[in-house]
Amino acid sequence: MRLALGIEYDGSGFSGWQRLTQPGETGLPTVQSAVEDALSTVADHPVLVTCAGRTDAGVHAACQVVHFDSDATRESRGWMLGATSRLPEAVSVRWCMPVAGDFHARFSAVARRYRYRLLNRAVRPALQRQWLSWERRPLDADAMHAAAQALLGENDFTSFRTVHCQAPHARRNLQRISVRRDGDVLDIEVQANAFLHHMVRNIVGSLIEVGAGERPQSWIAEVLAARDRTLAGPTAPPQGLVFAGPLYPGSWKLPAEVTIGPNA
Amino acid sequence: MRLALGIEYDGSGFSGWQRLTQPGETGLPTVQSAVEDALSTVADHPVLVTCAGRTDAGVHAACQVVHFDSDATRESRGWMLGATSRLPEAVSVRWCMPVAGDFHARFSAVARRYRYRLLNRAVRPALQRQWLSWERRPLDADAMHAAAQALLGENDFTSFRTVHCQAPHARRNLQRISVRRDGDVLDIEVQANAFLHHMVRNIVGSLIEVGAGERPQSWIAEVLAARDRTLAGPTAPPQGLVFAGPLYPGSWKLPAEVTIGPNA
Repeated sequence: MRLALGIEYDGSGFSGWQRLTQPGETGLPTVQSAVEDALSTVADHPVLVTCAGRTDAGVHAACQVVHFDSDATRESRGWMLGATSRLPEAVSVRWCMPVAGDFHARFSAVARRYRYRLLNRAVRPALQRQWLSWERRPLDADAMHAAAQALLGENDFTSFRTVHCQAPHARRNLQRISVRRDGDVLDIEVQANAFLHHMVRNIVGSLIEVGAGERPQSWIAEVLAARDRTLAGPTAPPQGLVFAGPLYPGSWKLPAEVTIGPNA
Repeated sequence: MRLALGIEYDGSGFSGWQRLTQPGETGLPTVQSAVEDALSTVADHPVLVTCAGRTDAGVHAACQVVHFDSDATRESRGWMLGATSRLPEAVSVRWCMPVAGDFHARFSAVARRYRYRLLNRAVRPALQRQWLSWERRPLDADAMHAAAQALLGENDFTSFRTVHCQAPHARRNLQRISVRRDGDVLDIEVQANAFLHHMVRNIVGSLIEVGAGERPQSWIAEVLAARDRTLAGPTAPPQGLVFAGPLYPGSWKLPAEVTIGPNA
């Protein structure tokens, strides 16, 4: 039987999502190995999971989705509570449900959403500091929002990928991007069919340059058009970034938080 | 010169606000000693601070207000940045400003506000877990809100104070209380002229009993009227509690976040 799982995690204590297999790397904690270890104990056989989108070291997830196969007879609630009780406190299972055998956490997803939160004031955060990055220069959120709209649509995002990105090509369809200010906090939300390695953090780092007045609004469009990794702003730090989750067509009958709506 | 300071802190690593002076207690970190040590270094003389409202071990503050006296000539920004750079990462100074010599952080405050956040779902929080407490029983937020309104006004809150409370009497004027659900999270906000020791956490613990259906809505009014500490619900855990801050009359010309509005 194939099962889908919604997972929430605090990425700060992990070397990212993916289980590390290179010599010298093994032994570093990753979210994937924590989840597989917990599920293997509940299933009483080795479990391998496939995720919707890998996250980097220090990046969080509100609803990562994975699938795995098991013939163990457990209620959905048993998987959820059993796995959570065996996971470190930085990881918990939000839900678990049986899915059709051809569901694939990565390939069935039609979009992914990320959220970046940035404290914008003179002094560093104390409250919520695990979930915020910090910029002391005053930022113009409206200018950032306006500049970001140049990224919408099907584009080659070469300028915003890291040199370590292993994707075969850099074309992605960016469906939504918004920058909103709520008091001292800037909330940046991005949705695309898929993302390149460091794409959100490089976009945020570039928008910060615009918000701080170092670059004009039109600069974002120029960087995108140049397809040159050396032009974009610095990579924004990981702790402000949360993988909000993937979105799937309604036909998979997954929870509403990961199901694409008629207007999404 | 008298100065006022707005301070934000994560209470989880501290034995509360107050500097400990009993034998065997000294040496435990408290927010007050961290703040006084940092300010003393910036002032280059010993600084003692007086706060608007002491917080217990594990309780956070979004805007604690203190006052202190110093003849050191420093710009407000110098106090703020200098103190913050000498504070542990769990504490930061939001603002600093000179105030009239008769301003008193505690006695000039006309109200205090607290916020309690509670995750209400089957599994424990991973994200935001430092700022949330957790209740797995489904809670009826509307019932909790309705029951809480019985606490409004000038009342004797003996039933909701801890046996360790040292206040000379238990009459407090509770000005606002609300319980709102936002998805899985319950937000409880309370404003009173002043609070007794454990008062917010005992109120929250009692409202949870109502929300879980263990007690009828009318029970909160009964507990209040009984003036009996043994009747209220259990004390809710500290990590969900944030001291949002005190409120002062506009005549002190403090920042808007700690100034009482015409409708407050």
